[in-house]
Amino acid sequence: MTVGREIHLASRPVGMPTPDNFRLVEVDVPEPAEGQVKVRNLVMSVDPYMRGRMNDVKSYVPPFAVDAVLDGGAVGEVVESRSPDLKPGDLVLHGYGWREWAVDDARRFRRLDPVAPPSAFLGVLGMPGLTAYVGLLDIAAMKPGDTVFVSGAAGAVGSLVGQLARLKGAARVIGSAGSAAKVAHLTGDLGFDAAFNYRDGDVSRLLKQAAPDGIDVYFDNVGGDHLTAAIARAKLFARFALCGAISAYNEPVPGPDNMALLIGKRITMRGFIVSDHNDRMADLIREVGAWYAAGEIKAEETVVEGLENAPEAFAGLLRGANTGKMVVKL
Amino acid sequence: MTVGREIHLASRPVGMPTPDNFRLVEVDVPEPAEGQVKVRNLVMSVDPYMRGRMNDVKSYVPPFAVDAVLDGGAVGEVVESRSPDLKPGDLVLHGYGWREWAVDDARRFRRLDPVAPPSAFLGVLGMPGLTAYVGLLDIAAMKPGDTVFVSGAAGAVGSLVGQLARLKGAARVIGSAGSAAKVAHLTGDLGFDAAFNYRDGDVSRLLKQAAPDGIDVYFDNVGGDHLTAAIARAKLFARFALCGAISAYNEPVPGPDNMALLIGKRITMRGFIVSDHNDRMADLIREVGAWYAAGEIKAEETVVEGLENAPEAFAGLLRGANTGKMVVKL
Repeated sequence: MTVGREIHLASRPVGMPTPDNFRLVEVDVPEPAEGQVKVRNLVMSVDPYMRGRMNDVKSYVPPFAVDAVLDGGAVGEVVESRSPDLKPGDLVLHGYGWREWAVDDARRFRRLDPVAPPSAFLGVLGMPGLTAYVGLLDIAAMKPGDTVFVSGAAGAVGSLVGQLARLKGAARVIGSAGSAAKVAHLTGDLGFDAAFNYRDGDVSRLLKQAAPDGIDVYFDNVGGDHLTAAIARAKLFARFALCGAISAYNEPVPGPDNMALLIGKRITMRGFIVSDHNDRMADLIREVGAWYAAGEIKAEETVVEGLENAPEAFAGLLRGANTGKMVVKL
Repeated sequence: MTVGREIHLASRPVGMPTPDNFRLVEVDVPEPAEGQVKVRNLVMSVDPYMRGRMNDVKSYVPPFAVDAVLDGGAVGEVVESRSPDLKPGDLVLHGYGWREWAVDDARRFRRLDPVAPPSAFLGVLGMPGLTAYVGLLDIAAMKPGDTVFVSGAAGAVGSLVGQLARLKGAARVIGSAGSAAKVAHLTGDLGFDAAFNYRDGDVSRLLKQAAPDGIDVYFDNVGGDHLTAAIARAKLFARFALCGAISAYNEPVPGPDNMALLIGKRITMRGFIVSDHNDRMADLIREVGAWYAAGEIKAEETVVEGLENAPEAFAGLLRGANTGKMVVKL
């Protein structure tokens, strides 16, 4: 019998999660039944949306249960199989993160072509990549010549949005991030035309400096004052893709007091959830996979080692400690 | 030489307009030059958007000038013509309201088929009608079976939105208005399924009672707490047409503090301006004109008599003193 470790939700966080909201638990890993596989996890994802699931409120995904194992995206290797569909050595993507071992029916695991390192399937070629791709191209309907602004631009999704916008012919790509080092990374390494540190002062003023002629597209990962600023700087017929509101995940924030500008500017705002758009995954793998393989897109990662450090990795993500995709190597 | 009267903007209002923001002025009416016509105005429009034009800020229409005549929609009768395109007796729609006489090139006046009384072309078959039609059907993409909520539902636009939604097969039509009499009018005369007086308490609570299963479409004339409430009650994939924000015209109002719900609910919000959609005027006249002629749509009016009372009519409109379209008979 294998003994494995997993992370339970010990209590629901109030505001920013703390270590005592989590518990590291040792469990006996069951042997796979007929039709099942046993998977050793290699890498797991921590994502901002998980914060919402830690509250006991109805949302687009059900809340996590207290005193039970968390879950989320992970990539692992099949070590034992009682299904004809998978064999030992196969690399698989699945939803049983926050644990070292996963055992379930083979259909719960998607076999991956190992065209990229395992963690890429949690980032550029996974959910964050699809979020950036669908949000920018389908929801915000970005077109060549647009000025594109993305908040949280050093994050897993934001860094891809900016690079995709550039490759798709944006006239100007602007990002916001939470440190001077991230800002330097955006303009120095990722090809953003301008970037600012949102901790440097009033976001509306900072955005005005970065986008003196206004913006056509806003990809929102942050909400709050970023959304207000984007409305103020929007050009006529601007399109906003609302993807996340990380500023509001731990505490309520005031809403934009300039919503009436949506009328005269004919702004369209659309919220979206990536799981509605899985039909675009093949396009992502084809188009973005090629750019990634050719080195045209950089998919940076912040890697934390060890399951026991996953709660701290998650809290760090909410504080903005990551550059690019935050993953935990197991 | 004809002497006529017109209303000038004497000073820019701060908050609600007062009588001393306006001035009644007597002017000599010029004789029409070659290609011009002279029109005696019969009825003029006061509209909420005019409040924005009284501020000295850039918007989708230029601001009114101080110490100059105001303008806006009006219907008049040609009394003298030096153009082959119009003849005395013709009924015309034009933009020279707030005055008794209008003289300009014939192409500035649109000849009307007198299929309805003059004021109808300022209401159900004019700009408010087109606003309701385009906002509900094109911007909010209302479909049969939708639950539709419209704020400011006793106004010129709102009362048409509700009646159109019913005729287009909405499952449930809900309106808000600012008095018990208006609420009774909406449900008793205009076929709304439910209505509430937004002065009766918390709008979110009132809307929840009126729409226990949520809303698919929100047509916003009000902004502020109405918009916040509509976000809270929106069903998945709800569509919002943002048409007006009368609550914010005289003073800033706090923004919705629940914008993050747009994401999980996949809400689309679109601001629009009716003048982008003049290509739909023929459809309005055909479809809504037929319903109006058949008595299927009621186009109520609040009529104020006399140009000298136009400023008070306008202020009354902003206070909600009207039911249906507010016009001034000259």
